[in-house]
Amino acid sequence: MERTTPRTLSGFMELLPGKQAQFERVRALIESSFRLYGFAKLDTPIIESAEVLLAKAGGETEKQIYRFNKGEHDLALRFDLTVPLAKYVAAHYSSLSFPFRRCQIGKVYRGERAQRGRFREFYQADIDIIGDGALDVMNEAEIPAIICNTFRALGLKRFKIRVNNRKILSGFFGILGIAENVADVLRIVDKLDKIGAEKCLEALLELGLSEETSREILKFIASDGTVAEKLAALNKYRGKNETFDTGLDELKTVTEYLPSFGVPTTNFDVDLTIARGLDYYTGTVYETILTDYPEIGSVCSGGRYDDLAGYYTDKKLPGVGISIGLTRLFYVLDEQGLLNPALDTAPADVLVIPMTEDLRYAASVATALRSRGIRAQLYSEKKKFKAKMSYADKLGFPFAAIIGEDEIEKNVISLKDMKTGKQKTLSVEKAAEMLAEYKTAQMAVAPIGG
Amino acid sequence: MERTTPRTLSGFMELLPGKQAQFERVRALIESSFRLYGFAKLDTPIIESAEVLLAKAGGETEKQIYRFNKGEHDLALRFDLTVPLAKYVAAHYSSLSFPFRRCQIGKVYRGERAQRGRFREFYQADIDIIGDGALDVMNEAEIPAIICNTFRALGLKRFKIRVNNRKILSGFFGILGIAENVADVLRIVDKLDKIGAEKCLEALLELGLSEETSREILKFIASDGTVAEKLAALNKYRGKNETFDTGLDELKTVTEYLPSFGVPTTNFDVDLTIARGLDYYTGTVYETILTDYPEIGSVCSGGRYDDLAGYYTDKKLPGVGISIGLTRLFYVLDEQGLLNPALDTAPADVLVIPMTEDLRYAASVATALRSRGIRAQLYSEKKKFKAKMSYADKLGFPFAAIIGEDEIEKNVISLKDMKTGKQKTLSVEKAAEMLAEYKTAQMAVAPIGG
Repeated sequence: MERTTPRTLSGFMELLPGKQAQFERVRALIESSFRLYGFAKLDTPIIESAEVLLAKAGGETEKQIYRFNKGEHDLALRFDLTVPLAKYVAAHYSSLSFPFRRCQIGKVYRGERAQRGRFREFYQADIDIIGDGALDVMNEAEIPAIICNTFRALGLKRFKIRVNNRKILSGFFGILGIAENVADVLRIVDKLDKIGAEKCLEALLELGLSEETSREILKFIASDGTVAEKLAALNKYRGKNETFDTGLDELKTVTEYLPSFGVPTTNFDVDLTIARGLDYYTGTVYETILTDYPEIGSVCSGGRYDDLAGYYTDKKLPGVGISIGLTRLFYVLDEQGLLNPALDTAPADVLVIPMTEDLRYAASVATALRSRGIRAQLYSEKKKFKAKMSYADKLGFPFAAIIGEDEIEKNVISLKDMKTGKQKTLSVEKAAEMLAEYKTAQMAVAPIGG
Repeated sequence: MERTTPRTLSGFMELLPGKQAQFERVRALIESSFRLYGFAKLDTPIIESAEVLLAKAGGETEKQIYRFNKGEHDLALRFDLTVPLAKYVAAHYSSLSFPFRRCQIGKVYRGERAQRGRFREFYQADIDIIGDGALDVMNEAEIPAIICNTFRALGLKRFKIRVNNRKILSGFFGILGIAENVADVLRIVDKLDKIGAEKCLEALLELGLSEETSREILKFIASDGTVAEKLAALNKYRGKNETFDTGLDELKTVTEYLPSFGVPTTNFDVDLTIARGLDYYTGTVYETILTDYPEIGSVCSGGRYDDLAGYYTDKKLPGVGISIGLTRLFYVLDEQGLLNPALDTAPADVLVIPMTEDLRYAASVATALRSRGIRAQLYSEKKKFKAKMSYADKLGFPFAAIIGEDEIEKNVISLKDMKTGKQKTLSVEKAAEMLAEYKTAQMAVAPIGG
């Protein structure tokens, strides 16, 4: 038979089972954290009509898109979860109740240049809160709590949620009399962390700003100190520009509610350099940095926008949302050796190993364990005991239930703890209890924790 | 602004939030049932190189495939989860331990003619057990238990797992001296249920079989009675054909182990008409019929095969697997009105409704509930009380936590049961306990149950 080489496309993550188990754990924890805050889980198609998907897109995005014809249909694969959300809300507007809070974790596609750690198929984990005509700033205040709870659930403690408000920036530019190229200024300001103050200054000057204005901008956005000190510094500009004042009020609301939402001050900062490139953010913007790995960049970003679906509907649909690039986050955590080896990755909690020809007792043991919620795999190949134990070992089963003539006769099992090597003979019921306790302990093991 | 109509492609399922919650519950229960049996969860790319994906395909399949170019790459979307599994096992062979048990629930794509209840993007939920060179028949014996446990977990009781063995059929044909067109005969036999005995006979005669042989085939496959009676009837043919005898032994093993695996006799039957069209099944084959809806056809099918990945590798990789067409199953359950209305579909367990301007106490209540695992949504729009309650009602929140000046002063909340209308004033801790109890009860609600 002629054979095809079984290869996976470059830029497409395909994990071995143990690694996949770690990935699944990260994904599940993000999802359950999101859902604690009352987000409905959605699942929209991966393929959309190209016309619908590209209603707004252009430039870079359009080039990266997977677009193709099937029959007479011009189709494309979704490149993010936001455009499908906009379509969904516009299409199902009359069937939804607002505020509409949705979470979606799904694969998106971008035909980027193949590069280590860059993926063409990757998971995004998104939440958005959509209002009908209006959306209270309290929703913006709740977002840092969601980010914080999510990363803590993963086992991370050393991260910082950086928050800014686009109205403060544009209001400030208004005070300085910069009206025309605000978007350009925002783009430059956003890069301060990456390119440094000097290059920022150059870029601002190139834009045609005076040196005085440029230096004032840099001074403004580089403001230092505690959150309270930064707010106090901002307060000095109050009364000069309405947009600025609104932005400052919003930022104050966000910071005021941090304690009620359980966000530790160590995980939060105000950072006026953050503008989030995208044009459509209009209020609070968020980035999240791993304190020990700032070079990774933001692992969770988003912000407030005023017009989710203007290209589909005349309804005004403001919202706030954040997104985690899950595939990249997982890749980076793995690269940095941060995946916790204490997390079990075996396909089950226990491997049932029969040592007799007749497997009926062993099968009934597996059945009894499963009926008590214990994941039990029955090893039914005719192999030597050593081969069976080696299989349990290789797959990382935490326990093996060994069943020979003795066990069958006494109606018990011999439960071996694969880590300690200790073995106990006990009833199936007792074993199920022990395994359930172990499972509970495992549930508390965070997937991240070096 | 020029607007694009926000539409979803036909043949692509996109559910409203409440329905999606029901779908998710079905999906989650299938997954956790599969995983009780020790299957590693995999997640392979949706896009593969067309050369790899179509290594074996041809005919109908090839026509339905979504195939396109991106740059210089000839790509295709997976049309099932079996070919990607074959690729995966062949590609990662040396990193895997065998038997390799994997479960995968993922979207697959087939550009079928648009038709009510037929989907172009749909979920398959698959499990497979792959051996390296050999795989014991015990694995085939375990499959009915997995099917049974899975459908029972969904809340279904009236279903029948129908089992046959391809070796019995081909052995029987051997006994009759039919050697050449066994595949054709199998295809006809497979249709007995649909087309009836008369048409089956016609088709067999058309194939060139004698009337005597044709009638003998029909008599054989239409055998009636209990499983034991059917096995006894089969036993009469023993000793005439080696393949037949092996098949009968295998079928006996499968039936013998049913009690140990906890499969009730009411959910199981031997049915010699089942051949499963696909050529590659070689031993036990499975179908699952909903007793009250036989017209739906099989909702879970599969079987034993001897060569998973021959077009990728010279390793002999026998296996056994089953697949649930999840999207179609859900669609059909919904159409038949079988989705259980007692299952909550709200985005959270409780809606926290503040009646004061300052939301700090309400936010801290939501935070406290969440820290105890309760999904709590904070309603923070400035609306009238009636509008807030109507929102809770529309989304189907089981509980509302109402917080006014009184509650803040006394450090309590008023918890309203939205179904009974009863309201209790209690501490957050007590409320969390009550809600946790309610959640536990909800967890026991099966998603199917008319």
